[in-house]
Amino acid sequence: MDETLASTGEFGAIERITDGLRQPASTLLGPGDDAAVVAAASGSVVACTDTIVESVDFRLDWSSPQQVGRKAAAINLADISAMGAVPTALLATLSAPAETELAVLEGIGAGMAEEAANLGAGLVGGDLSSANQLVISVTALGDLEGRAAVTRSGARPGNVVAVAGKLGWSAAGFAVLSRGFRAPGAVVNVHRCPQPPYAEGQRAAAAGATAMTDVSDGLLADLGHIAAASGVAIDLRAEALTPDDRLIEVGSALGADPMSWVLTGGEDHALAATFAVAAAVPEQWLIIGEVTEGSGVTVDGAEYEGAQGWQHYR
Amino acid sequence: MDETLASTGEFGAIERITDGLRQPASTLLGPGDDAAVVAAASGSVVACTDTIVESVDFRLDWSSPQQVGRKAAAINLADISAMGAVPTALLATLSAPAETELAVLEGIGAGMAEEAANLGAGLVGGDLSSANQLVISVTALGDLEGRAAVTRSGARPGNVVAVAGKLGWSAAGFAVLSRGFRAPGAVVNVHRCPQPPYAEGQRAAAAGATAMTDVSDGLLADLGHIAAASGVAIDLRAEALTPDDRLIEVGSALGADPMSWVLTGGEDHALAATFAVAAAVPEQWLIIGEVTEGSGVTVDGAEYEGAQGWQHYR
Repeated sequence: MDETLASTGEFGAIERITDGLRQPASTLLGPGDDAAVVAAASGSVVACTDTIVESVDFRLDWSSPQQVGRKAAAINLADISAMGAVPTALLATLSAPAETELAVLEGIGAGMAEEAANLGAGLVGGDLSSANQLVISVTALGDLEGRAAVTRSGARPGNVVAVAGKLGWSAAGFAVLSRGFRAPGAVVNVHRCPQPPYAEGQRAAAAGATAMTDVSDGLLADLGHIAAASGVAIDLRAEALTPDDRLIEVGSALGADPMSWVLTGGEDHALAATFAVAAAVPEQWLIIGEVTEGSGVTVDGAEYEGAQGWQHYR
Repeated sequence: MDETLASTGEFGAIERITDGLRQPASTLLGPGDDAAVVAAASGSVVACTDTIVESVDFRLDWSSPQQVGRKAAAINLADISAMGAVPTALLATLSAPAETELAVLEGIGAGMAEEAANLGAGLVGGDLSSANQLVISVTALGDLEGRAAVTRSGARPGNVVAVAGKLGWSAAGFAVLSRGFRAPGAVVNVHRCPQPPYAEGQRAAAAGATAMTDVSDGLLADLGHIAAASGVAIDLRAEALTPDDRLIEVGSALGADPMSWVLTGGEDHALAATFAVAAAVPEQWLIIGEVTEGSGVTVDGAEYEGAQGWQHYR
């Protein structure tokens, strides 16, 4: 019989999930005590938290437990990168029904640890609770290495707007999975687990990015947050946002508009930033528009008429 | 009509919950960006995370939303104190059904912020997700102010064992509420929201505590964690653990054994620690036993025969 939480108990399950976790040098005290201790060399710590919920943000018939764990980690690690910081640690709470197979939780834990380890961060603490639905809350910590945090409020008229990473791929993957298909893998896998361009966050910060965010709710919505926080308007050039050929193919097969995925699809966790001048934009970034006076986000000077970005409860 | 999450949407609700939050000087960047930035003056950060789930850890017909928020914060802030650290910040994720009244979430947020503010910590970030059950995950951060962390592994034979704070009160309160009563308030309110002796954690650390933990699973269970981590045995003196008169009265009224609440009742979030010598034990602490060679936890030299502590899924 498969082991479940009910057969193993809370402490047995935690031991199995944390067993064999390797820790980087920044983990001064790892899991197993009342709290962990993590190095914060530059005298401050960057911290964020985000949750994914079964049936709302992931499905175990679409994704492996490892992919779910990697996604739970990635959506937080991308936020750390979006501040220009380097991730140092993750903490995670799993709330799960008693009949959950232990192998599922071990897979989720392994996925989180793997995504963190790829960036030199440790999975340093966590908690396991009974609930009637699988809920995964992750907190990520990071270090600014002496740089100033890049907030959403520093965009100024005349700045250029640029992105790094994929746009619309996760939404295309979701559309494919929703219709009962499993291919093409290129888009489906991005929906299963985003591939944030983590290193580009630090690169943009070092290059003097004036504002930055990750694209979690959709490009227009997230640039809208920068525009609102900075008190500016943003105008995008549609030509610079031409969907990748693979998105055009998927859109054609499903009868969907790939441009709406690019502009309003969330969950890609690309990075969007503003820079004082085009010459400051790092090599891997694509210039897609400019900051002007006013408010709101437009495409070629006009309001986008398509669907809006993701918001819980709406 | 009462406002609900469904009528307000995610962003509107977050705005209402974070509106007017005051931040201490240690909050270098508060809520509203991709991540917060918190001072970590001594070059490291202490971090822990814990979750409470509706119907498992709290009931909204037993507790006000504020009490639930304070409890979610307190169980984490107590873990920071148990390392000898000073809390600096909280992050929280709320997963809630769409029909949840906004006033409930505002109350929970206010309770968390209040419990944190009492200790000089800020509520610096969070997230709101749709789920079919109310799940509150909190991460607490703290600063060691240059002291070494007090772990669970430093207890040595010959050390004395001491506690600060209430023991058994939360379990007595739970017993009262479970039978449909609402009084006495003294025990019921401790179940609704624990009253950890936060400052005693730093005091014990400064006094040279060799090991420390908070009492969340029950005194025997949590001292068992210290014994196991330290490779020692612990023997308690029953006389030193005589239940408070109010627990004896409640036990008498309900036909329950108050000593079992003291020894195995969780959720009080008292602090338990070991010290090299009795003279080192701070004034507010009560000496309850000693560390010996061997393993396990005994009372007057014998294994306790009553019920064991709390464990999820068991």
